[in-house]
Amino acid sequence: MPNEKPIISLGSRYLWRSRWYNLRQDRVRLPDGSDGTYTVVEHPGAVWIVPITTNGQVVLIYQYRYAVDDWCWEVPAGGMLPGVAPEEMARRELLEEVGGEAEQLRFVARFYTMNGIGSEVAQVYLATGVRLGTPQREAMEIMEVRLFPPKEALEMARRGEINDGPSALALLLCAEFLLD
Amino acid sequence: MPNEKPIISLGSRYLWRSRWYNLRQDRVRLPDGSDGTYTVVEHPGAVWIVPITTNGQVVLIYQYRYAVDDWCWEVPAGGMLPGVAPEEMARRELLEEVGGEAEQLRFVARFYTMNGIGSEVAQVYLATGVRLGTPQREAMEIMEVRLFPPKEALEMARRGEINDGPSALALLLCAEFLLD
Repeated sequence: MPNEKPIISLGSRYLWRSRWYNLRQDRVRLPDGSDGTYTVVEHPGAVWIVPITTNGQVVLIYQYRYAVDDWCWEVPAGGMLPGVAPEEMARRELLEEVGGEAEQLRFVARFYTMNGIGSEVAQVYLATGVRLGTPQREAMEIMEVRLFPPKEALEMARRGEINDGPSALALLLCAEFLLD
Repeated sequence: MPNEKPIISLGSRYLWRSRWYNLRQDRVRLPDGSDGTYTVVEHPGAVWIVPITTNGQVVLIYQYRYAVDDWCWEVPAGGMLPGVAPEEMARRELLEEVGGEAEQLRFVARFYTMNGIGSEVAQVYLATGVRLGTPQREAMEIMEVRLFPPKEALEMARRGEINDGPSALALLLCAEFLLD
């Protein structure tokens, strides 16, 4: 087992703060004894939800993302809010983005999305027995909802067509449930 | 087909710049006619390389990541540099992180890693016929190299044990080549 904390923080300052994430710059001591700085996108984490309707279809969204100036295939997702548990956050995002309500929500996995520059942890949930209703989106959220047979959604992910990486991984991590 | 650019930039300013990425804040016009701001982690993109040795083993690294204060299972990866083509970048990272030289490099897929907040595009390469030598790491790069049979590496990814998301997705996108 390697040294548990090979890089030690000597102090922090914030370069920028927002509702969504902060930019924190740390002075650090490296294993060779030298000092340096490391800047971290300090992120509260997020949930990605793979929704399966009562008819056994996977709910994907096709969303415009300003940061990449592109349309992306995704599953519903959203950043964590203070004081809201991940499962509750997953239920809220499902309702907000596709008007979905799930009979059952199951935790599948967690992973880091950008561990070289930021602290975001993605938590993946599988939502089953989903009934779709009217979304409650914000002005920034521009998307269409599409339903796919599970096998087709998985094939899209395997062919590299789900261009939002965390969504593609979320689908593939749910593969065993989708092909049940 | 939806409106191609539903959010329009009205102007930009930089909140922070670094060698690795910039923080850019744009004034934007939303589809409902209202104005707002959108802050983008402006990133040059990165390559993730799935290396297979001449003996048919997958090369994984177990790396300490300061941004998440955790040890992560990953494949070799690194950010793009100005004027360096992605394939050349993939060869450099392979050499730098695991001392690897590949007989063949094949482009597999691309995806966005953080399209809600940043512009990073990940490009995945499969490197075959890899011979391992002496790594040429920087002080910030703290890692061990481990070899796994392809089936085991894929199982780790499917079970959610590859905790660097882009690395897990890179492995799963290479599944058909790994099981050849």
